[in-house]
Amino acid sequence: MEALAEAVTRTPLLTGTSVEQKREEIRRYFHHTSSLYENLFDCINSDEAYYLRPEPLRHPLIFYFGHTAVFFINKLLLGKYHGHRLDERLESMFAIGVDEMSWDDLDRDHYDWPSVSETRAYREQVRHVVDTLISEMPLTLPITQDSPAWIILMGIEHERIHLETSSVIMRMLPLKYLDAHPLWAACNDTGPAPENSLLPVAGQTITLGKPATAHTYGWDNEYGHKTVAVAPFKVAKYLVSNGEYLAFVQAGGYQEPKWWSQEGQGWLTFTGADMPRFWRYCNGKYVQRNLLQEMPLPLDWPVDVNYLEAKAFCNWKAAQTGTHVRLPTEAEWTVLRNLLDTDQADWTRAPGNINLEHYASSCPVHRFEHKGVCDVVGNVWQWTESPIDGFPGFEVHPLYDDFSTPTFDGQHNVFKGGSWISTGNEATRYARYAFRRHFFQHAGFRYIESNRAEVPVEPVNSYETDELVAQYLEFHYGDRYFDVANYPKACVQTLLSHTPGLNHGKALDLGCSVGRASFELAQYFDQVDGIDFSARFIQHGFQLKETGHTRYAIPVEGDLVEFKEVSLQALGYAELGDKIDFAQGDACNLKACFCDYDLIFCGNLIDRLYDPGLFLTQIHQRLNAGGYLVLTSPYTWLEQYTPKDKWLGGIKVNGENVTTLDGLDAILGQHFNLVAQQDVPFVIRETRRKFQHTLAEMTVWQLK
Amino acid sequence: MEALAEAVTRTPLLTGTSVEQKREEIRRYFHHTSSLYENLFDCINSDEAYYLRPEPLRHPLIFYFGHTAVFFINKLLLGKYHGHRLDERLESMFAIGVDEMSWDDLDRDHYDWPSVSETRAYREQVRHVVDTLISEMPLTLPITQDSPAWIILMGIEHERIHLETSSVIMRMLPLKYLDAHPLWAACNDTGPAPENSLLPVAGQTITLGKPATAHTYGWDNEYGHKTVAVAPFKVAKYLVSNGEYLAFVQAGGYQEPKWWSQEGQGWLTFTGADMPRFWRYCNGKYVQRNLLQEMPLPLDWPVDVNYLEAKAFCNWKAAQTGTHVRLPTEAEWTVLRNLLDTDQADWTRAPGNINLEHYASSCPVHRFEHKGVCDVVGNVWQWTESPIDGFPGFEVHPLYDDFSTPTFDGQHNVFKGGSWISTGNEATRYARYAFRRHFFQHAGFRYIESNRAEVPVEPVNSYETDELVAQYLEFHYGDRYFDVANYPKACVQTLLSHTPGLNHGKALDLGCSVGRASFELAQYFDQVDGIDFSARFIQHGFQLKETGHTRYAIPVEGDLVEFKEVSLQALGYAELGDKIDFAQGDACNLKACFCDYDLIFCGNLIDRLYDPGLFLTQIHQRLNAGGYLVLTSPYTWLEQYTPKDKWLGGIKVNGENVTTLDGLDAILGQHFNLVAQQDVPFVIRETRRKFQHTLAEMTVWQLK
Repeated sequence: MEALAEAVTRTPLLTGTSVEQKREEIRRYFHHTSSLYENLFDCINSDEAYYLRPEPLRHPLIFYFGHTAVFFINKLLLGKYHGHRLDERLESMFAIGVDEMSWDDLDRDHYDWPSVSETRAYREQVRHVVDTLISEMPLTLPITQDSPAWIILMGIEHERIHLETSSVIMRMLPLKYLDAHPLWAACNDTGPAPENSLLPVAGQTITLGKPATAHTYGWDNEYGHKTVAVAPFKVAKYLVSNGEYLAFVQAGGYQEPKWWSQEGQGWLTFTGADMPRFWRYCNGKYVQRNLLQEMPLPLDWPVDVNYLEAKAFCNWKAAQTGTHVRLPTEAEWTVLRNLLDTDQADWTRAPGNINLEHYASSCPVHRFEHKGVCDVVGNVWQWTESPIDGFPGFEVHPLYDDFSTPTFDGQHNVFKGGSWISTGNEATRYARYAFRRHFFQHAGFRYIESNRAEVPVEPVNSYETDELVAQYLEFHYGDRYFDVANYPKACVQTLLSHTPGLNHGKALDLGCSVGRASFELAQYFDQVDGIDFSARFIQHGFQLKETGHTRYAIPVEGDLVEFKEVSLQALGYAELGDKIDFAQGDACNLKACFCDYDLIFCGNLIDRLYDPGLFLTQIHQRLNAGGYLVLTSPYTWLEQYTPKDKWLGGIKVNGENVTTLDGLDAILGQHFNLVAQQDVPFVIRETRRKFQHTLAEMTVWQLK
Repeated sequence: MEALAEAVTRTPLLTGTSVEQKREEIRRYFHHTSSLYENLFDCINSDEAYYLRPEPLRHPLIFYFGHTAVFFINKLLLGKYHGHRLDERLESMFAIGVDEMSWDDLDRDHYDWPSVSETRAYREQVRHVVDTLISEMPLTLPITQDSPAWIILMGIEHERIHLETSSVIMRMLPLKYLDAHPLWAACNDTGPAPENSLLPVAGQTITLGKPATAHTYGWDNEYGHKTVAVAPFKVAKYLVSNGEYLAFVQAGGYQEPKWWSQEGQGWLTFTGADMPRFWRYCNGKYVQRNLLQEMPLPLDWPVDVNYLEAKAFCNWKAAQTGTHVRLPTEAEWTVLRNLLDTDQADWTRAPGNINLEHYASSCPVHRFEHKGVCDVVGNVWQWTESPIDGFPGFEVHPLYDDFSTPTFDGQHNVFKGGSWISTGNEATRYARYAFRRHFFQHAGFRYIESNRAEVPVEPVNSYETDELVAQYLEFHYGDRYFDVANYPKACVQTLLSHTPGLNHGKALDLGCSVGRASFELAQYFDQVDGIDFSARFIQHGFQLKETGHTRYAIPVEGDLVEFKEVSLQALGYAELGDKIDFAQGDACNLKACFCDYDLIFCGNLIDRLYDPGLFLTQIHQRLNAGGYLVLTSPYTWLEQYTPKDKWLGGIKVNGENVTTLDGLDAILGQHFNLVAQQDVPFVIRETRRKFQHTLAEMTVWQLK
């Protein structure tokens, strides 16, 4: 490994004083990455092997050979840093991987792949383009996310990811297609598995997320900021070794459904697995497949398993010991990572089997120890209990908007720590990758023992993609368009100006949708109830109150979307959540407990009720003496919401035009005085260029 | 008739010098109208008769007895001149008549009508309310359309209309229910029918429409202004008498389909009619029913028929004479009306059997002559060939928006001139009423002889009520909202600023919709072709070019609509029509003749095409050297218009975001240079309060 190790597997700093020196640093990192990638593929001794699919959930290796080069061109075109395609056919064929398929979602496309030499020639062309761009691109330091240098680094780090994933596919190729290669030599040390033991870890509050000011390239999902209180736990000194895992296999663990999650059972049924993917049982002995060779199962090396297997092992282990054995969460893993006070940029040699600085394979689990814990980083990736999610403050990088967001679905678990072949960004402290739980990488696990049964993972804060709900999130919490003030805020401000003597006890926000007016009202009232008919909408108000954040994706143009996050803190509502109760409810059939209000605000509600007249004839019963009912509506009557015979206005009655205001007056006049009437405009974004621009009428009614 | 004739059947002047005197004048007119109405109903000798339906297409008389009172209250409430209902039940039941039903659309509702005495008591209440209002309402002179006095006059004139329609229904009641009454005495004179003859009338250009400054009350349809060139014709000296019509009946006219229009044949089949509605054949003799009695058919009185019968007679007569005999158009009738130089306000005694100043029935057709023509006004209404339409400049009165507009449908023909019982406004020069062609009133006809076969009537300029087409008419020709400039105008101004060296020969407005940009372009180009895929849209551009006017109704709130008219003259485009050709066409498959353009403008087109790529790859062939292609679009891609695989952008291609601008560039770049790019906002009104507010992007491409 000597020739390719050293600094070239370390991701460059974004900072520096000499622009020209930085160009050369990036150029060297680019060429070495590309060469390293090609060196890995050089282990394949027959072009035929490029077209096999040892992993049916993935493309053949020829795709990955071309893909990392095409990625550069596609991103540079997208960022307008490069003007034209090099080869339309290859750039289409090599564009999209299938890394994330489920096992029951096999790729059935047929590709007419190009030859290896054609692909190699294409890679050379791209090298030339990128090399030239590195020389000519505008460059200032530090490099920021909108710099062309960031895109170059993105392409390089992307290739480093595929260096690892390609090595996993090659590890599945029949050995006859692979030659030993001095650059890719496995570790030779094996021995009996060490006895694992549990070490206590103190509880602590830690912060996750890469600072925006960090000096190395990061993928979008690394940034943001999340503070977590981690309870005390005990941690296994070693990653689970082949030897430790063998006991589970020999105890019939793969045949016993009770150790397996439902997802795990499905996977077992589909694959018929009875041992880890890289083991083989042959002539009474277990054998392990490494990148380029097989060896008798190295009992003291970490086992390579997917999350489902790791979790089954923990369940079995927990039953054996009668304790709460499980995988660490991402936060718990981070507590362990803090045992190590160095990171890739600073170390003189990697403090673990990582970054290709030691072996081209795993090595014994007791080789690298830090403060009593071995393999804090490196050897194999360590699965966690945490489905991946963006940290609060997460922002999509505009040139790679589907790197992370599709994985925020609760189906992808984070693994941390890196493997022997994790280089560049992959080997840094903040790197976090996520795969479907049944996928294989050079990944294993470490277990912990908790003193609580429940696993402290939060539901994934996935992006609301329901178009209507997302539209309303943007309407309540998003940007201002055409210079029209935020509608829920404007409504509350306007109603306050028209309600003399208003008591500030209890308010009801009826038809609260995603909840903005409830938060606004909570600034003035002791208690606010936010009620909406639709759970799809109200869940966002609830989530904001509970977690302080929510997320949505809104259309930009056609299918393209923009990702947005709402933060209660940023809105200035951080302290208000306790005053608000959100509940699902029907304005036309309101539960008895919703009463004694000083204010009932119905924003854009009445023309969406199935029986607005019924609602209006009863609502006075819910108000305190002198209380106010405030309605806003553009009076957009639609039969899909309100049968025509229930419309309050916008109809001919006995041949004469009746407006909604006439209809309101006719019903409410009995119990209320109309004390104010004012237009309040609002804008709802449909796409980047198309908006609904509406003038609601606010009417303020005081109980007689 | 002495007691009720005189000035009380004459509509008051709107002008005057003494407000108090005007109040008394209106009061007197109001009470006399109401009394006259009640006097007519006094002829009914049995309450039972109020509930019969001698005319199944109409409500029973009890409805009309209550209706004219309820009308006052409903309009006063609508105008906020009166604060509360007197009787909700009666005001609902008596609100809507069924005057306009087709014969195959019979009313099947069942009503629980109130008693006659209850209705009479209600009428008294209304008299009191209106009388008080006449004393107390604010009043300045002259009375204008937004004055409460106008609403009082509207109620009075409305009752005068129903005085006449009720008399028609009473004319159908069995005689046993009616008593003779000195106020309602029929004419006694009868004799042989005079021989009709034709008198020449010179061609002339005349103006139709009541001036806005006229000094008497008018219904909305009377106002506006239309100039018509009338060709010379010959006119029958007399209205067609019973005697003259009898020849048609006896010639088997009702049994011979060839004389009847298709509509007439349908009516004949439905009714089985074999003579006029008020004739009866009894013991070998014809008898005529008048209001309160029967008499031997008075051969020299005018025949009472509907339009369909009048037209059949003319067709028969034309065949007999070998000439172009037909009814007059409204304009031709107006030429005859000019023979009479007096109108209701001025005459000392009515110059015809009208205004109840002579008889309570028809009288001989030779009784009143003016410059050789008899019955220029009065005796019976005179059917015309003209379907009713608003004159250019027509505006709906906001408190009675369905008085006229529902009749602008091509199904209602105008009759003119008034009958013996036409009083008030009905008896004035500008009065024009329209009924379905099969309806009976005290109406007959006069025929004319033309020297041309075709009838010079224009298609009715009915209100476009298709919501989308009307929305686009407002978008192109209507009001400005949110201070956003008119879009087609702004597009043309903007493109002119970005097209240096543009030749001003031929322009193509592709996707012209309702055509505004074509008119705008015609200000600068020698020739403009406006092409749209949809005939529904393009017909309005065509109509504007041909007639200078078009009309539409747009939603205000719910079902309520607002009526609008577009005038080419008012837009300053009066002289441009000749430069424009509108045609239906498919942008993706354009006929070969559409070529040699200096400019092709595609406003909001590309994201509505089924194959925009196909369109864009070919469009350069239609341009002259150096010509410009200008596209504007908000890039709102929808699968209902464009299959997703044809979207130019707003999609991921090979995993990367492709915007529409990228897609345009990829296709157009081959033949064009992109020379400018600019946002142009537009607003489309959906209701009074709801709008689409959009930012289109204009891109200007010059042929390489």
